[in-house]
Amino acid sequence: MELSNIGEFGLIHAIQKLSFQSSPDTMIGIGDDAAVLKIAPATLLLATTDMLIEGVHFDLTYTDFYSLGWKSAAVNLSDIAAMGGKPRFCLTSLAIPAHIPVEAVKDYYQGFSSLVRAHKTILVGGDTCSSKDGLVISVTVLGEAKKRMVVPRSGAKQGDRIFVTGTLGDSGAGLELLKSGVRGRESGVRSQKSEIRSKDFNSALRAPHSALINRHLRPVPRVEWGRQIALSGCASSMIDVSDGLSSDLFHLCEESGVGAVLLSDALPLSKSLMKSADYLNKPPLHYALSGGEDYELLFTVPLSRMKRLKALPIPITEIGMITTGYEMFLMNAVGRKTALQPTGYTHFKRTRNCAKRLT
Amino acid sequence: MELSNIGEFGLIHAIQKLSFQSSPDTMIGIGDDAAVLKIAPATLLLATTDMLIEGVHFDLTYTDFYSLGWKSAAVNLSDIAAMGGKPRFCLTSLAIPAHIPVEAVKDYYQGFSSLVRAHKTILVGGDTCSSKDGLVISVTVLGEAKKRMVVPRSGAKQGDRIFVTGTLGDSGAGLELLKSGVRGRESGVRSQKSEIRSKDFNSALRAPHSALINRHLRPVPRVEWGRQIALSGCASSMIDVSDGLSSDLFHLCEESGVGAVLLSDALPLSKSLMKSADYLNKPPLHYALSGGEDYELLFTVPLSRMKRLKALPIPITEIGMITTGYEMFLMNAVGRKTALQPTGYTHFKRTRNCAKRLT
Repeated sequence: MELSNIGEFGLIHAIQKLSFQSSPDTMIGIGDDAAVLKIAPATLLLATTDMLIEGVHFDLTYTDFYSLGWKSAAVNLSDIAAMGGKPRFCLTSLAIPAHIPVEAVKDYYQGFSSLVRAHKTILVGGDTCSSKDGLVISVTVLGEAKKRMVVPRSGAKQGDRIFVTGTLGDSGAGLELLKSGVRGRESGVRSQKSEIRSKDFNSALRAPHSALINRHLRPVPRVEWGRQIALSGCASSMIDVSDGLSSDLFHLCEESGVGAVLLSDALPLSKSLMKSADYLNKPPLHYALSGGEDYELLFTVPLSRMKRLKALPIPITEIGMITTGYEMFLMNAVGRKTALQPTGYTHFKRTRNCAKRLT
Repeated sequence: MELSNIGEFGLIHAIQKLSFQSSPDTMIGIGDDAAVLKIAPATLLLATTDMLIEGVHFDLTYTDFYSLGWKSAAVNLSDIAAMGGKPRFCLTSLAIPAHIPVEAVKDYYQGFSSLVRAHKTILVGGDTCSSKDGLVISVTVLGEAKKRMVVPRSGAKQGDRIFVTGTLGDSGAGLELLKSGVRGRESGVRSQKSEIRSKDFNSALRAPHSALINRHLRPVPRVEWGRQIALSGCASSMIDVSDGLSSDLFHLCEESGVGAVLLSDALPLSKSLMKSADYLNKPPLHYALSGGEDYELLFTVPLSRMKRLKALPIPITEIGMITTGYEMFLMNAVGRKTALQPTGYTHFKRTRNCAKRLT
């Protein structure tokens, strides 16, 4: 069915009917000029927003709409996780080109809803409008945190150890596998945009390389891990790995006014990445440093708080150390240091991103 | 200067340098994964978001970037006004095509900043990214209100009188004047997108018809008026006039489960509209009912609370009455009633918008 058959307000009603949770803290949700919400007393409000543009952040040849909805929720939930916060409410806006069928839009909302519901986060508003060119998504997530629990990017100090959750590089390699046609060849997914449906992708996710493709299409925001890191009080700074480890470490160093040495041999790599990197003919380290969209948490821990780490029941790896100065280095197993540049994704320009240093 | 000269993070730093206010309630603003904010105790949080898409919501031939920034703030502040709330914080995201110069982006932020500052609202975050096709803007505004002060769309009851602030139709006529080339002929503004600068428009705003063009380009959200209406306790329901009076009254009726009769002779029309409607060869009523983007406040008052209106030092006009049933009528000076359809803007479809009634 085409959107012009049901119109803007028909679409809004269809979205309202999807199984988004309600909550006693949502006084007014979708349907008024603004949502009216209760925030727990003595907590701080966290607010983050991200835009996803067709042709820039995603390509409908490589994703289904369910995954796209999931991911647009994930990238924002991950930002709340990186503050050590608890997501509470979200708003999502879509600008939709005429050729996209209603079913695809519903798939988007189902993917979105499925992830936010898992994190007890309530959809309370948004905006749906037509787009002349590509699909545009904008998501805002509101969360809360106790004052002492917020972990900023700016607290890293010389001597702090650098940690990361999970494994790195899987998502970046997953994207390259999709681009190299792995999914198309191995699962017979049709690549015409209008034919892309979630069921096709569900079978793709069972194919070889599926772990990496799954991490790219449906990343899991580390909300619970972020809360546990914050509650333990171990972290002096934290950021999520969205642009790529080298770029996100650069942001953290920049905000904290420090430098860093990363141990190349220590970076946590999955078996799937080792295997697929061979297939893609690039070193796994390339994906781990520059791949982006891992949505793992990168955080620093002062030596005096290292004991608090031990009680954390989450997979973390020590990958380096904070230094003075503003430079970043990569050190290999025999102690050889090379300069490390932020090589992850940056908009408008793909060269070295060092605007703040130059100005 | 082109965006590729300064890159994404150079742009973020340039934005941070603009004179956005800070506030003791902004614990962390731009530059971290999420903003960290204090909300006053015992208040409810208001949240609203809107997307503005080039070619759908605006045309760079008819607006300058300063006005565009101003308007994208205004449409969201207006939603907070329509709840009777106080705007506190905002987030704005931009997806920017490569051909837009850095100066234009700065103009956008200056227009945005100028309006939000006037409302003591702090920019605390957002997202800047590249766009392949058109300029895309997404704004979220967070506000607060005491529990009893929130005015929803859904409280209108049979017999309530309908009021509107200010005058209607000016903005819609302003847009038609711009489209008919009034600005170009009378102020010599160059229409090439890359050459559009605020200074050209500043002179256009002094030309004849300028009042209407100004209302279209730089609408004033009725934040203080909305607060006064809420504080007086007179209103049973409220909405802002963004799609056009007929459509927004329809939304209000729909949410309240009521109908309405509007008095065509009572609609408040400006002298400028009367004059320019002649020039445009359309009845002023057309713009007042369907023009849209007035950003006035439409609200209902039970007879028992009419006295509270008298103390309000704001320009309001009584324009009709809430009825039972779900239908809307327009009644002229001799008492003749005609059916009133929501004829304001709707996305995906420009025919009668009555999705909820049909399903």
